[in-house]
Amino acid sequence: MSPLLLLRRYNSRRFSFPYPPFHTLFSTVSTPPPLSLSSPTFTIWGANTGVGKTLVSTGLSISVLSSLQSLLYLKPLQTGYPLDSDSRFVFRKVLDQLRLANCTNSVVASNQILIASRSANELGGCSHEEVKVNGRQSEEVRLECKTLYAWREAVGPHLAAEREGLMVQDEVVRDVLGRFLGPQSRDGDGSEWRLIETAGGVASPGPTGTLQCDLYRPLRLPGVLVGDGRLGGISTTISAYESLVLRGYDVPVVIFEDNGLSNEVALLSYLKKRVPVLVLPPIPKDPYDNLTDWFLDSASVFTSLQDELLLFHSRRVERLKDMPKKAKDLFWWPFTQHDLVPENSITVIDSRCAESFSIYKVKDGKEAIIPQFDACASWWTQGPDLSLQTELARDVGYSASRYGHVMFPENVYEPALRCAELLLDGVGKGWASRVYYSDNGSTAVEIALKMAFRKFLHDHSSFLTSQMNILNGTDLQLKVLALTGGYHGDTLGAMEAQSPSAYTGFFQQPWYSGRGIFLEPPTVFFTNGKWNLSVPDSLVSDNLSSENQPSFGFRADIFCRSRDSSTIADMYRAYICQQLSLNSGPNQGTFIGALLIEPVIQGAGGMNMIDPLFQRILVSECKKCRIPVIFDEVFTGFWRLGRESAAELLGCHPDIACYAKLMTGGLIPLAATLATEDVFQVFRGTSKLRALLHGHSYSAHALGCTATAKAVQWFKDPRTNANIDSSGTQLKELWDGETINKISSLPNVKRIVSIGTVCAIELEAEGSDAGYASQYATSLIRQLRDDGIYMRPLGNVIYLMCGPCTSIDICTHQLNKVYERILAFDS
Amino acid sequence: MSPLLLLRRYNSRRFSFPYPPFHTLFSTVSTPPPLSLSSPTFTIWGANTGVGKTLVSTGLSISVLSSLQSLLYLKPLQTGYPLDSDSRFVFRKVLDQLRLANCTNSVVASNQILIASRSANELGGCSHEEVKVNGRQSEEVRLECKTLYAWREAVGPHLAAEREGLMVQDEVVRDVLGRFLGPQSRDGDGSEWRLIETAGGVASPGPTGTLQCDLYRPLRLPGVLVGDGRLGGISTTISAYESLVLRGYDVPVVIFEDNGLSNEVALLSYLKKRVPVLVLPPIPKDPYDNLTDWFLDSASVFTSLQDELLLFHSRRVERLKDMPKKAKDLFWWPFTQHDLVPENSITVIDSRCAESFSIYKVKDGKEAIIPQFDACASWWTQGPDLSLQTELARDVGYSASRYGHVMFPENVYEPALRCAELLLDGVGKGWASRVYYSDNGSTAVEIALKMAFRKFLHDHSSFLTSQMNILNGTDLQLKVLALTGGYHGDTLGAMEAQSPSAYTGFFQQPWYSGRGIFLEPPTVFFTNGKWNLSVPDSLVSDNLSSENQPSFGFRADIFCRSRDSSTIADMYRAYICQQLSLNSGPNQGTFIGALLIEPVIQGAGGMNMIDPLFQRILVSECKKCRIPVIFDEVFTGFWRLGRESAAELLGCHPDIACYAKLMTGGLIPLAATLATEDVFQVFRGTSKLRALLHGHSYSAHALGCTATAKAVQWFKDPRTNANIDSSGTQLKELWDGETINKISSLPNVKRIVSIGTVCAIELEAEGSDAGYASQYATSLIRQLRDDGIYMRPLGNVIYLMCGPCTSIDICTHQLNKVYERILAFDS
Repeated sequence: MSPLLLLRRYNSRRFSFPYPPFHTLFSTVSTPPPLSLSSPTFTIWGANTGVGKTLVSTGLSISVLSSLQSLLYLKPLQTGYPLDSDSRFVFRKVLDQLRLANCTNSVVASNQILIASRSANELGGCSHEEVKVNGRQSEEVRLECKTLYAWREAVGPHLAAEREGLMVQDEVVRDVLGRFLGPQSRDGDGSEWRLIETAGGVASPGPTGTLQCDLYRPLRLPGVLVGDGRLGGISTTISAYESLVLRGYDVPVVIFEDNGLSNEVALLSYLKKRVPVLVLPPIPKDPYDNLTDWFLDSASVFTSLQDELLLFHSRRVERLKDMPKKAKDLFWWPFTQHDLVPENSITVIDSRCAESFSIYKVKDGKEAIIPQFDACASWWTQGPDLSLQTELARDVGYSASRYGHVMFPENVYEPALRCAELLLDGVGKGWASRVYYSDNGSTAVEIALKMAFRKFLHDHSSFLTSQMNILNGTDLQLKVLALTGGYHGDTLGAMEAQSPSAYTGFFQQPWYSGRGIFLEPPTVFFTNGKWNLSVPDSLVSDNLSSENQPSFGFRADIFCRSRDSSTIADMYRAYICQQLSLNSGPNQGTFIGALLIEPVIQGAGGMNMIDPLFQRILVSECKKCRIPVIFDEVFTGFWRLGRESAAELLGCHPDIACYAKLMTGGLIPLAATLATEDVFQVFRGTSKLRALLHGHSYSAHALGCTATAKAVQWFKDPRTNANIDSSGTQLKELWDGETINKISSLPNVKRIVSIGTVCAIELEAEGSDAGYASQYATSLIRQLRDDGIYMRPLGNVIYLMCGPCTSIDICTHQLNKVYERILAFDS
Repeated sequence: MSPLLLLRRYNSRRFSFPYPPFHTLFSTVSTPPPLSLSSPTFTIWGANTGVGKTLVSTGLSISVLSSLQSLLYLKPLQTGYPLDSDSRFVFRKVLDQLRLANCTNSVVASNQILIASRSANELGGCSHEEVKVNGRQSEEVRLECKTLYAWREAVGPHLAAEREGLMVQDEVVRDVLGRFLGPQSRDGDGSEWRLIETAGGVASPGPTGTLQCDLYRPLRLPGVLVGDGRLGGISTTISAYESLVLRGYDVPVVIFEDNGLSNEVALLSYLKKRVPVLVLPPIPKDPYDNLTDWFLDSASVFTSLQDELLLFHSRRVERLKDMPKKAKDLFWWPFTQHDLVPENSITVIDSRCAESFSIYKVKDGKEAIIPQFDACASWWTQGPDLSLQTELARDVGYSASRYGHVMFPENVYEPALRCAELLLDGVGKGWASRVYYSDNGSTAVEIALKMAFRKFLHDHSSFLTSQMNILNGTDLQLKVLALTGGYHGDTLGAMEAQSPSAYTGFFQQPWYSGRGIFLEPPTVFFTNGKWNLSVPDSLVSDNLSSENQPSFGFRADIFCRSRDSSTIADMYRAYICQQLSLNSGPNQGTFIGALLIEPVIQGAGGMNMIDPLFQRILVSECKKCRIPVIFDEVFTGFWRLGRESAAELLGCHPDIACYAKLMTGGLIPLAATLATEDVFQVFRGTSKLRALLHGHSYSAHALGCTATAKAVQWFKDPRTNANIDSSGTQLKELWDGETINKISSLPNVKRIVSIGTVCAIELEAEGSDAGYASQYATSLIRQLRDDGIYMRPLGNVIYLMCGPCTSIDICTHQLNKVYERILAFDS
């Protein structure tokens, strides 16, 4: 037995603490804390309460320390304190066993209770004890045990917190944990292990009532599941495992106490080769047994546990390290010049949590998982906050099991129907009566064009027949009326509706010819503290010289219906009528068969805000000519611009509209083309050949419809989306007006468009620095990535994009970082 | 107290039993049994063992009987018998309480143990007791309690079954249950309730070791979850709930015993408005307490339970009933002439289970959920057996929680990388080195064409430059070489590669021009017991008159490489070379920039099998001319034709190939275009404009990649797919040769193509009865639906399609039904 050299023990309510006081750690910006990967770090989960989590923590700690490695044991939430203290148990028991085993190395062990509720404090309170055991060798390992929060009553932390008045917000628990787990937190040499032991079962509530599996999700630490070896334990173990899996956790090992029921057979069969199952000897039931022999008997099992965990950890890190090279070798990224992507600039995304990626990063030689705000809302699709992400996961899991994918035509099933009901009662309200499902924005647009052309041919059939013998199509050219700078997708039909651009050159698609009449639209943008209107020369009439173009104090003024009777309105109308008659008619052999616009904002074109007045008049003039109107709301739909649809902002209805991206909450591809009953009627008849013969295998797939049904409701419900304003129809202003003002006045900023979830900033740039292929913003983007913002520029346009539920605090936080960087930016 | 009128009780190993003996019920065709919807039917699940499932069953039974309704209580699996018998407990306790309550109606109650293990039998065995209690009114209600299988040891059924030698296959348990739950099983007037009480927790194993939540999944009965009110019970209850949800079950109510911990608060918060939570008074712990008072105290809770369940049931049935009308009103189905779909022909799909839909059906006035074999493999996407379906659900749930959707370009994350590795090591093995992700077959083809054209322009650039001033594209027409009858998707670019058809007319897509050189290919098919070759007249040379076209005894002969040196091969080669030089060159102003074919089988074109020799020569001649070769394997890939790729059947490699449909296991849309490194290299350079600028928001979405990684491995692993033959590279023959032979000789059958998972039968039809818009097969399809086969014809071509893992028994079973119906078919 090693001699006991030093034993300090004291109880106090105040003690020296190496970290900043906790109360300063509270933040509403709930980004996951950075996590070091140098140390194997694992959560200890339980299939139920009382299954032996602390014994597993203890056994594993003994094993780790015996192999000359240090260990940090954290118990974030302890109830029943001070009678029960898992960190104290681990601390004492590990020391006992190490002494017994005559451990070769020296051990410095401590146990610390950081914050206790008043009643717990009265009975013992915060304490700190520290012990050093000298071993035969001078090598020293550390065992630090810490309880972060302790309550007296032996009930769930949610009850204890309420009853004892020590409430801790989820973010605080995570931030405090993060202090111990981050890359900066320790000077360790990488040989330190870290265990976080949860309280109760995997889904037992934390102090605020948030389930622990949800509470700790932003950290997404891999976990050991301590199963239940008793009768019924197969079921609770498997279910607990599934709750963890359903939250995106990895569970590298299941371990449980043998109760003679061979539960491992069923568990192994369920887990297949995925997860090893370890069985511990029966735990003595005698409360006076000090478990010394049990730990000795269990030593080999804990060694296996340690080995399995280490294997998992090193494989994980190895894989993360290899991923950039593999990606460069195997992927063909869209829209990407591979030669411009050095291996070290590839982002390895380990997971996402609400608005943030968790990425793998090596900094100063230290490997870590760090958060990055997903400022491109992963290409404009994202909407979920953390709760919605979890609910979507459960809902699509359900839907995958209940339906998988089933045939849609001539059939009906709940998700497809529910989704259609919600779309028609939401974005389609007041005009649409039919839902046509497809897979993405591009297919939705191709479908919309097919609908519109048929409707046009039908509505004008007697004219067309009387004028020309063109109904066989050979002599008739149908074109689409669209705007320059528009973008509708990358399949050929959608491309044809796009004005010539970098995307449409002969080398990109030799079949592209540009079958549109493309009008150059007037735009509005924010600069130097006000909204300005920019009317292209082609459109300017004598009434309005480019000098006296109006500006607006508030964004709302731009949308104001009173503008409909302005001089500018007349000018727009005249121009549009002229263009319609110039480009369409029997003399030209060409007819405009559809109007296709992105309402309010052109996304891919560079976040251009089109004067809504111009679009409104365009719609109304086309309707007069019985030209079907298509709104491409793929980007703008579902609160992207602060309203459920951008059509609401324009104040007019289309005949056909396309939706995708945010529709599924940002989870999976699904698109819908909505149409009026008038459009639908044209396709009815006695022959199948009259039907719209366009479809995709996964039409109306159940998972997409399920996700859509959930997301559409979530976004608009003030109970789930705190951003819905009191009118219930629009989002609160997410981007801080003052900061926007300041940015708009910076000399290197050309314009800003901030509306809804979008805040786009065009940087001043000349020549080849401007435009789609520009690398101008590269260094700024790199700096912002260091700040934890993941941006992708559109040439010299950078943007922040959030989800409809993103908290204003998060937006402000990111916007400030952007402001600071632009302020200092000198390309 | 009502007088006890009649009490019969006997024990016996043999007794009269109204259903056929169980041993005849075994079947390997594991289709879910039909379920009547006339009776409210619920499973009673437990969050753990010992949480009071039987008390809930009893209380609910009392409540139901008190409201003058009959009830059938089933305990499928009972261990610890005869000491424990839940059905006996329910039987006795309900009677006791009803007598006590002086119930007004008469009750005939019985309890029956149907099958007991030998050791259970020795101790008490099968028994049947029946009691009649006369009430004050003559109305009579029935309480039937039945234990289906009983074992002596009080352990899990999987252990008891093994130890006591009474093993019951999963199918048998389900079939036996089905006997009691089917629409034909009772003469009830719809006022009968049915409860099925499970054993242990939701994921406790059944006799074969299959977890009960999986075992009962094909029935997908809604269930009451009996939660756990103890410490830790929030966690086990939520996890159990999630295990049920993750298997597609509906859980209309959670109920649990109060233990003073207010677990309902956390449960309600978790369940939001979705599910009511009921709390039962504490159960007396005294084992001598007969619970009489407890049941009286709990009566109102059980009344609420009954009300909630009834509400759920009636809402469910109401919704199912309304769905066809709503579908007609709101949907716009693809490829569907709505006027040809009467409301009563709309299929309401309640769920899918492996190869079968469960559909809602009213027959003879009775509402039921009945199975239908999904013979169109939901448009050629389906692959999962029941295990794979469950695994996919868990995996996509995990992926949704871990990643949601994250940005792909310039990034890497595990599912996208893993998926790419598996594709390149599978369908891309030996030729491909890059994976380009998109959303569906159509987009994958558009991407492939863009790749091929660029490669062509690159490879021929010096020639093109020297010959003509065409590199600006204005003078240069690029076309695709393709086959008539081919189909590559419905977006314009993919349509252009399709020969003119019903899909491409001016009214379908006025922009279609058909930018292909379309060759009419020779086909092979099975008729009158042999495989025949049919060479189109345009191709027949003097060497081969249409009379002496060869036939083949075995399908393998068609693929035999020795044919490469045959006369026919020479003829093919000459024809192809002639066509290439005729249609491409500076004189024509047109170049063939790509070859695009569906290898071996043209799907949408009518399940035509193209002579593989012809395709092989086509590929080789195009490669000689440096025309990039694209295989559209969207339909044929991933074992659809018995090999992982159809390219393997052809025995040659493409430069580019497209995959989708089966790739994700049939769960969600995802597509991949694979390419050689040579193709990729052409897009490298210093400018972004040289990159392939085509993409979709959900490129490489995590859920799709996750599902693909699982499915691709599952299909090819002999441990998960019993259909993989000993070579490990192909599927066993799934369609019974003898039956195929018989069908091929029927007078109303023109041809058969059976290969891999496909068995297509063209019916003899003339004129308008043939072709895509034909309604010829309608009545046959209707008959087959009565037989439980859900087919969609391609005009006069009908087909059975299964997944790569579908058991041969299922295939044989369906094929026989088809044979019988065609035999009797007289359009």
